Amino acid sequence: MIHEKMTALTACTEFCVRFSEVDAMNIVWHGNYALYFEDAREAFGRKYNIGFDDIVNAGYAAPLVEMSFQYKQPLRYGQTAKVNVFYKNTDAAKIIFEYEIRDIETDAIMATGRSVQVFLDKQNQLVITNPQFYLEWKRKNGIMNNE
Amino acid sequence: MIHEKMTALTACTEFCVRFSEVDAMNIVWHGNYALYFEDAREAFGRKYNIGFDDIVNAGYAAPLVEMSFQYKQPLRYGQTAKVNVFYKNTDAAKIIFEYEIRDIETDAIMATGRSVQVFLDKQNQLVITNPQFYLEWKRKNGIMNNE
Amino acid sequence: MIHEKMTALTACTEFCVRFSEVDAMNIVWHGNYALYFEDAREAFGRKYNIGFDDIVNAGYAAPLVEMSFQYKQPLRYGQTAKVNVFYKNTDAAKIIFEYEIRDIETDAIMATGRSVQVFLDKQNQLVITNPQFYLEWKRKNGIMNNE
Amino acid sequence: MIHEKMTALTACTEFCVRFSEVDAMNIVWHGNYALYFEDAREAFGRKYNIGFDDIVNAGYAAPLVEMSFQYKQPLRYGQTAKVNVFYKNTDAAKIIFEYEIRDIETDAIMATGRSVQVFLDKQNQLVITNPQFYLEWKRKNGIMNNE
Repeated sequence: MIHEKMTALTACTEFCVRFSEVDAMNIVWHGNYALYFEDAREAFGRKYNIGFDDIVNAGYAAPLVEMSFQYKQPLRYGQTAKVNVFYKNTDAAKIIFEYEIRDIETDAIMATGRSVQVFLDKQNQLVITNPQFYLEWKRKNGIMNNE
Repeated sequence: MIHEKMTALTACTEFCVRFSEVDAMNIVWHGNYALYFEDAREAFGRKYNIGFDDIVNAGYAAPLVEMSFQYKQPLRYGQTAKVNVFYKNTDAAKIIFEYEIRDIETDAIMATGRSVQVFLDKQNQLVITNPQFYLEWKRKNGIMNNE
Repeated sequence: MIHEKMTALTACTEFCVRFSEVDAMNIVWHGNYALYFEDAREAFGRKYNIGFDDIVNAGYAAPLVEMSFQYKQPLRYGQTAKVNVFYKNTDAAKIIFEYEIRDIETDAIMATGRSVQVFLDKQNQLVITNPQFYLEWKRKNGIMNNE
Repeated sequence: MIHEKMTALTACTEFCVRFSEVDAMNIVWHGNYALYFEDAREAFGRKYNIGFDDIVNAGYAAPLVEMSFQYKQPLRYGQTAKVNVFYKNTDAAKIIFEYEIRDIETDAIMATGRSVQVFLDKQNQLVITNPQFYLEWKRKNGIMNNE
């Protein structure tokens, strides 16, 4: 059985809701949360050297295979919020993140979410065992696989 | 305990992947699937008179509180696909849809998903019991609540 | 001096304003008109074999260098409209389109616009003289260059 | 005849190109520049108290009626750039901005643009003479109308 464990690896981004992100109900259109989560995931990638370019340079791509969102409170035009992204460890050849969006002033949770990425090799084939570069990245960051 | 049951209510939309929807990996950016699902949800709303305007005219709003996506196969620029949206019945005061995106030619499943909407009244308060208009809509469409 | 002349080459697309395209003023967000124009430009490309893939297969890219929009009347959620795209001929190595968006029912003009594309070769260098494939495409479609 | 004159009023924003903003040519999709310009226009609005909310509170809306873009150099994923927005004065009842996007490191101009907004009153009618609040805003900021 495959377990997922929270780790200490985390990153944070801030954003101010843009006019173009709000819909006719005067709240952020639900599809735009993917942007906020992506900004946080990219900040994580830059902070820990596991970004889009790092993965490509190692000979892989890491497309998303799952994404989920829970919308708790509406975000409004001009509101400032932060996204916390947390790296969750699993022995499977996957990159799993959990997300939360909090209002900057009240710290109230506005939304949560989760994403799962897999690895494709240069022939666009799914990689079932962990790529070597990913295992090394985990070791450097103090994360243990049970393999 | 609250059960969800598939119903016969369904709608379908077709789309051709736009250039602007594709990312640097030459596949549809994951956040854009929210557009495809929304198009299908709106087609459902028009077909069965439960669209955005119908809900507003009944005195409610129905914001999304959950949305999830499973990406099975990448969608590419110029590819034509269809979205099937299925209405799932529950006794709770919620609107639940399941989605699947299939390639037009091969009928292969490209992605699946699910959305949950709740009802807010005119004071933006969450409505816990089913609004009268929604119960009537269910009856007209042959769907039974156990309440 | 370089002249531009209207030609008989034209294409048309239809669209229904999506919920996600509308902003807090309940009208289509101005940035989304680029989507409508692109849909029409791509329909033109498919109709006359001068689409993104045709240009790439000929060994070129044709990025936009200018784009302009005149917003005449607001577009609203659920409104159905059409985009007419017109090919304008010039002796310069450019692809020039003019656009108009009209309401389907009243035929009133909602917006107009214009785009200019240039050619880059495989080394991403600007091409100043007309590519051979483009001159041939013009001849096939009854358009004369004065060169 | 109506003249436009550059003023000393200006604002600046910075951005890092997001993955979702890049297209299959690996450069920012042209429609996304509207986002960058809007961010700068909103920063201007906050800096000089002439933002969306300020205009609404004065009893008006200020929709865009013209927008143009000149794309000089492609923007790439991860590139950091800034947007300078300049307020241009005219005696007409319009808000006119000019924009330039520059690479942060080289200061090279990547794109330029221009937007024109008009005023609508609460009945959504076009206002031909300058609203009182706008004339006062100009005076406070040292800008003279010739009226």
